[in-house]
Order: sequence, then C-alpha cells, then structure tokens
Amino acid sequence: MSKVAIMGSGSWGTAFSLVLADAGSEVTLWGRREELAASINERHENSDYLPGVELPPTVSATTDPEKAMAGAEFVVLAVPSQTLRANLESWAPVIPDDAVLVSLMKGVELGTVKRMSEVITEVADIGPARIGVVSGPNLAKEIARREPAASVVACADDDVARRLQALCHSPAFRPYRSTDVVGCEVGGAYKNVVALCVGMAVGLGFGDNTTASLITRGLAETARLAMALGADPLTLMGLAGLGDLVATCSSPLSRNRTFGEKLGQGMSTAEITASTRQVAEGAKSCSSLVDLAEQTGVDAPIAEAVKAVVAGTITPADTMAAFLERRTKHEQE
Amino acid sequence: MSKVAIMGSGSWGTAFSLVLADAGSEVTLWGRREELAASINERHENSDYLPGVELPPTVSATTDPEKAMAGAEFVVLAVPSQTLRANLESWAPVIPDDAVLVSLMKGVELGTVKRMSEVITEVADIGPARIGVVSGPNLAKEIARREPAASVVACADDDVARRLQALCHSPAFRPYRSTDVVGCEVGGAYKNVVALCVGMAVGLGFGDNTTASLITRGLAETARLAMALGADPLTLMGLAGLGDLVATCSSPLSRNRTFGEKLGQGMSTAEITASTRQVAEGAKSCSSLVDLAEQTGVDAPIAEAVKAVVAGTITPADTMAAFLERRTKHEQE
Repeated sequence: MSKVAIMGSGSWGTAFSLVLADAGSEVTLWGRREELAASINERHENSDYLPGVELPPTVSATTDPEKAMAGAEFVVLAVPSQTLRANLESWAPVIPDDAVLVSLMKGVELGTVKRMSEVITEVADIGPARIGVVSGPNLAKEIARREPAASVVACADDDVARRLQALCHSPAFRPYRSTDVVGCEVGGAYKNVVALCVGMAVGLGFGDNTTASLITRGLAETARLAMALGADPLTLMGLAGLGDLVATCSSPLSRNRTFGEKLGQGMSTAEITASTRQVAEGAKSCSSLVDLAEQTGVDAPIAEAVKAVVAGTITPADTMAAFLERRTKHEQE
Repeated sequence: MSKVAIMGSGSWGTAFSLVLADAGSEVTLWGRREELAASINERHENSDYLPGVELPPTVSATTDPEKAMAGAEFVVLAVPSQTLRANLESWAPVIPDDAVLVSLMKGVELGTVKRMSEVITEVADIGPARIGVVSGPNLAKEIARREPAASVVACADDDVARRLQALCHSPAFRPYRSTDVVGCEVGGAYKNVVALCVGMAVGLGFGDNTTASLITRGLAETARLAMALGADPLTLMGLAGLGDLVATCSSPLSRNRTFGEKLGQGMSTAEITASTRQVAEGAKSCSSLVDLAEQTGVDAPIAEAVKAVVAGTITPADTMAAFLERRTKHEQE
C-alpha cells in the first residue's frame, strides 16, 4: 500500500484522492481549514467541494503539511496554480527525499511564465525524473461518481511514469503513459483559456457551430505554442489536449466555461470573482500564455482575446465579431 | 449572379440554398415531391425539413432535374449518400457541360466503399478539377438561423476552390479553402459514425469525460484511415475534421448522435429507422468504413463497434465496457 499526500483539497484534489484510494493507496489530503479536515476525517465528506460524495476510509485529512507528507512516496500538488510557488516554498523543507511530485495543476505562473513543473524544479530543487503530471478529460464530479474516465500520466522518466500509472489505475480510472510533460502542461493550461472563450460565445447566445469552430481554432493555437516549447503534437491530439479541451468546453460543470458565460452575459471579472469561491485558472493563465506566445513568436489570438475581455478592455461581443469577420483564406494560412 | 442547382431538399441542402442566396446566387432546389416544391415556391418555406425558416426570394424549387440544372454553373449534390449513384445515373445526361459538382454528402458507398467524389467521377465521368466538397461544423438549423459559421470548401484544383469559396461566402458563412478532398470526405463520413458512438454512451448515461475520450479516439481513428488514403493530417485537425466532429457530437440536433442515443436506450435499428424520416448516415457508413479500414490495414475499433451495435450482434453496454476495459499502456501504442 503506497502512502500518498495530496496537497490541496479542492474538488479535483479530493476526487483524485478517491481514485488513489480505489487503486489501493493510503491517502492524506492537506487543506488549510480545520473544519474541512474534520469533515473529511469524521464524516468522510468534503462538504465544501464534493458534497454528497462518500470518501473511502483510507482517505484522511490534516492541516499540517508535514504530517500530510510524512512517509509519502508521492506528493500530489493540487492547489491553485498562482499559489504554488508560495505554498511550495513553505513545504519544501518537509518534502520526503525520494518522493515523486505529481502536478494536477493547470496553469502557467503569472510574471515568470513558468509551467508548474518548472516552478517545482525551481522552488523545491527537484529534477524532471521526479516530477509527474496527470492531465485528461477528468471533470471532478464525474470522477467522484466513479464514471469511467481516462487520463494521461506523464513523466520525463518512463519508469516513474509507469509507477505513477500503476498508482492511479483504478477500476474506473484508466491512465495512459507519456513522457511529454510540456505537452500535457501546455494543453492543460490552454484548455481553460479556450473554455473561457467558448463560455463567452455561449453567454452571447452562439450555438454549436460557433463553439466547435472555437474549439478547433483553440486546439490549433494550443498545439502551435506547445510545439514551439518542444511538445509532441500527438499529445495535443490526445486525451491531455483534445480530450481535456472537449470535456471542459462541453460541460456546464466547468468553472472556466462558466466564468466565460458570465462574461458573455455582461458581468465583469470583479463581479464574477466576488460571486464564487472557485478559481477559474484561465482568467489568470491567459496573460501568461500571451506572454509565452510573444516570447516564442507564435500567434495566440484566442488567449489575447480572453486576456482583453478579462481585463475589461474589449467586450465579449466585439471579440466574437473580430473572430468571425476575418477574411476568407486557405484553412492553413 | 451565378445560377446554382441544389439536388436534394433535405435540411442541409435547404439551409445551404439560403447561404448561397445570401451570397448572391440564384438557387433552384430539386426535390422529388410536388408538395414540397410548391411549399418552397409559394410560401418560401421547406415545411418538412426547415419549418419556420423563410427562404430568400432567389430560392425556388422544382421536381424536374433538367429544369433545376439548366444553365447552372454549380450543381450541389445533397441527397442521402447511399442514393447518390442511382440519382446521378438518371441526372447525368442533363448535367451542364462545364458545371462544377459540389458534394454536401457525408458518407461512403456500401459495397463499393467509394467516397462521394469517386462515385461522381465514375457515374458522371467528371474529373477531380470539377468536383468540390463543402464540409465543416455546419448544423443546418443554426445555419438557417444565420448564426455565424465556418466551413472548408475543397477541390483538387485551387482555382475552382476559389470560385466555390466566393460562391458561398455570405455575411454569416465563412468558407476556408483546401485542396484536400479526401481528408474532407473521410472526416465527414467518419464523424457521423463517431457521433453515433457518442450518442450510445449518452444513451447509456455516461458523462462528458467519457464522450470527450470517445471524440478523441474517434478523431485519431479518422485521421489514421484518412492518412492511409492520402489525406493531409492537418485537414482532420481542422474544421472539416475536429470541428465537424465536435459540433455533431455536442449537438442534440444531430441525427446521428440521436440515433446512437436511442440505441443506447435499448431501441433496435429497425425500431429507430421506423420512427424517423431522416437518414442517419453513420448507420450505413460504419460498414463501408470498416471495409475501407480492412483494405488499407488500419485499426477501426469505433467503426467496428458501431457496425456491430447497428447490426444488433452486440449490445451498446458490452461495446462500452470493451472500450473502457482496455489494458493500460502508452498513449500512442
């Protein structure tokens, strides 16, 4: 029985604890709030983020990072992307020496434009062979209901990827192996931004033809940046690219799509942020992705549009009009 | 003002007549039934397939193929795929000499496993430079409401593709040019089969994680066959591949997805066919695509599964279980 720490007890961290427990691990969830830890330990429920879902008895919770990570073979990181650096700085001294760090996070750090695995290396001084990523079409609420799902587990070291694959292979969760960490991370961060844009279109009343066109352009834009950063294009065609993108853009459960819908309906970023406790990663990562695209010299019209709408410098309607009015041309121009 | 004939007055043929009229053409729709032609000519409405949509005054209808095609610069073919050969045999003598034939059809002929453009060449003795295809995320009801949409217009001859592009570029419809007819045709036929499979999953109660995974695998399967037949993989990543697939799989308006949903809910193919007048192309093309895949030596698990469920030799539940129980492996194995 492996010991695993999951640092962060939002909906995806909690749902993933259930996957790992189903696959035979002993899981400790870390969260900041005492009441939440008590709810998990006493009632086996994360009443804030996954109400109504009974967690297995092998899942417990603590507010003490050292306790959570003590003896852990894998440390799963599931905090909001923009808080990783600060969290990791405080956790670094107590991370077990040989533990593999696994990122569930889907964002790019503002300012530094670093991917989550890069932040881990920088802050915790851990090399690529000890850093994994899990990414795919994994809406947390469906995972929590044990509906069948597939995902990609990536690590630069294929042996570690195999260990991670075995760790999270449960009856309902089927992990595929990859060594393309960059592809998974860029796919994961970008899909939130595209979902935000799709949400804007939905909020404005556009139909499935428009959203399908945005998804298509969004994946091309994602693949362009990912390839410029060294990713394998097949990763973007797979579960961590297309799969995750389609699930997030299709689901009314997606918080990024929902954020976009509210923008499309006329709410401002400040109003939306004030009305929800969940983080829409795309509203931050859009800026990082625009910066990364500039640095690598690739076009990023969707990320640019989302950044401008989130900042309030252009309306969603004007953005959509700009997309739709482009002159006719060859499809690959 | 170009003269265009549209042979077939189902929902997509009729919606496309509106696009062409908006783009400045004079359009004659051909249909078999007198009452339908009268409804279009007298009330400017196709009450059977697009009720409530007012057609422009430059759209008229006839039951006489020769009248429909007289003087037409473009002849748009919009009949069910499996009826093209018989229809075209009767029409061939009256097709204008220099007319470009444009396929809106998304299927592969049973038995011969020929794509629609191949059937056109064979029956009407017309070469690739006079055959075009229009394919993309174009749900007919949204097009009829003039919601903004994009599509791919393909012809082996780029000059003819340009003419076709100009022909259908309306304020709400943005055509992109391509010379990859094979990619568009395989993408169009396969998406109906994948949508049928997605519908089965929905009918069985599966959620967005599962459908997104099926879409991802479906596109990989489509690209595999298309590339074996000489298509450009970028076409499948574009509007005529991914875009069309996502629109069809997302939309409750899609008849192929609906057909699959009914299979998933336990109805038989015969029962479903008896209950609707519309044709679900995927229920036929699945067999042709399995044959094509065998001939070219590529794997086609989704097309095979759909074929077996449509034939009633396996239940949708067993099919889904087989998909979900595959052993863990590398994503690109």
